[in-house]
Amino acid sequence: MEIQISVAKTNKFGSIESGDSLEIIERPGGGISIVMCDGQISGSKAKTVSGMVVRKVIGLIADGIRDGAAARAASDYLFSEKKGKYPVYLNILSADLQTDTLVLTRNNPTPIFVAQEGLVKCLSGLTQPIGTTRNIRPSVSEISLIIGTTIVMYTDGLSNAGTKGSGLGLDICTALEAVLEEQQPSSQLIADSLLSQAIQLDHGRAEDDMSVVCLRVLPSSIDQIRRLTVRFPIPVVQDID
Amino acid sequence: MEIQISVAKTNKFGSIESGDSLEIIERPGGGISIVMCDGQISGSKAKTVSGMVVRKVIGLIADGIRDGAAARAASDYLFSEKKGKYPVYLNILSADLQTDTLVLTRNNPTPIFVAQEGLVKCLSGLTQPIGTTRNIRPSVSEISLIIGTTIVMYTDGLSNAGTKGSGLGLDICTALEAVLEEQQPSSQLIADSLLSQAIQLDHGRAEDDMSVVCLRVLPSSIDQIRRLTVRFPIPVVQDID
Repeated sequence: MEIQISVAKTNKFGSIESGDSLEIIERPGGGISIVMCDGQISGSKAKTVSGMVVRKVIGLIADGIRDGAAARAASDYLFSEKKGKYPVYLNILSADLQTDTLVLTRNNPTPIFVAQEGLVKCLSGLTQPIGTTRNIRPSVSEISLIIGTTIVMYTDGLSNAGTKGSGLGLDICTALEAVLEEQQPSSQLIADSLLSQAIQLDHGRAEDDMSVVCLRVLPSSIDQIRRLTVRFPIPVVQDID
Repeated sequence: MEIQISVAKTNKFGSIESGDSLEIIERPGGGISIVMCDGQISGSKAKTVSGMVVRKVIGLIADGIRDGAAARAASDYLFSEKKGKYPVYLNILSADLQTDTLVLTRNNPTPIFVAQEGLVKCLSGLTQPIGTTRNIRPSVSEISLIIGTTIVMYTDGLSNAGTKGSGLGLDICTALEAVLEEQQPSSQLIADSLLSQAIQLDHGRAEDDMSVVCLRVLPSSIDQIRRLTVRFPIPVVQDID
């Protein structure tokens, strides 16, 4: 069995900084977690705050703290530090090898899609951003870690794409079903496909920072080598050619 | 221009935990850094200590501290925490967009290879592991961030491969020159190629944890999308099939 996680991420058009922060960590008890934060203010302050929250959550998970408790702790920490002025949307997606489950922790109005055994389910429901008040609770779902599972989560730049102009947003469930019909799409292909459709809906100029995460549980790995690849384009303004 | 970083990593044969820890972070002033630690003790304690050091260095870089200062601080922190009992080899490789340089920080006897303009150079020279005493200094090199640059760094499991049995280790410089002769090899192909040659020298059973990092500076990116992919095979003992 192999767990494949991919991220595709773009800044708001014309912006050199993103308020979305993502980090991946190997869980101390086995498995892997990805933490995604979307700062609800704009510019470099959003980047600083979402980066601070991601690192806090990663540090807590590294210390063996469960995801739900880490989300609550990060919320209290953010509230103490920023007095409720900087709300942040937070998602934690974990493949936990101690419990053989996928754990989805959500403080984000955007839903998480789970495709398992030919069905795409949508985990939605009201949740609050973290850091706005004391006693924020995350929504935590736990599902079996079984082969063939695909999970997609994203920031609101993706779900809001196209809604300003024509009013037609991306139907992520249908888009995900379509890409899953291809022959064994990689997690990167799925993330890329959803992001490019969203950017198209914004007429090629993303109206907001957008991040998509796709996790897949694949039947077998070619070997026991762990691999990581980052592709980091450098904006033309900073090009030193 | 695009910066591509890939990691290929395997555990010592038969071991479920690795003493090598790697993490990637976006630099607060622009750019990207990868931190690699190799704990010089065995088993789960090595994993805990190298993970602790990596997170400390990542946290310091996130706070805007320069790589060399972060390495010194992490060394003092490790010495204070563990009283010099847990030496750790540390490398930091950064593409710093504030200075338009690649910064190579090394507290590791294994060299770093830099291929630029058709020449492969080897950065070696004596350095101490961190955490063994106070006032440990890293070796810091800074080179121009120019298109076509390839950097390879690795843990000692790679350079020691094959040296126990036949006595013939991997000539990494020659192996790197050979793979660079291919048509635009990706950073993942280079990392995979070096790791697989090392595992072959250990007769298919890695004698130690092995990690290889390859950074490439490529001429242009297809788009301004950042991408990250992790492939995380799950050891057969933990398979739930």
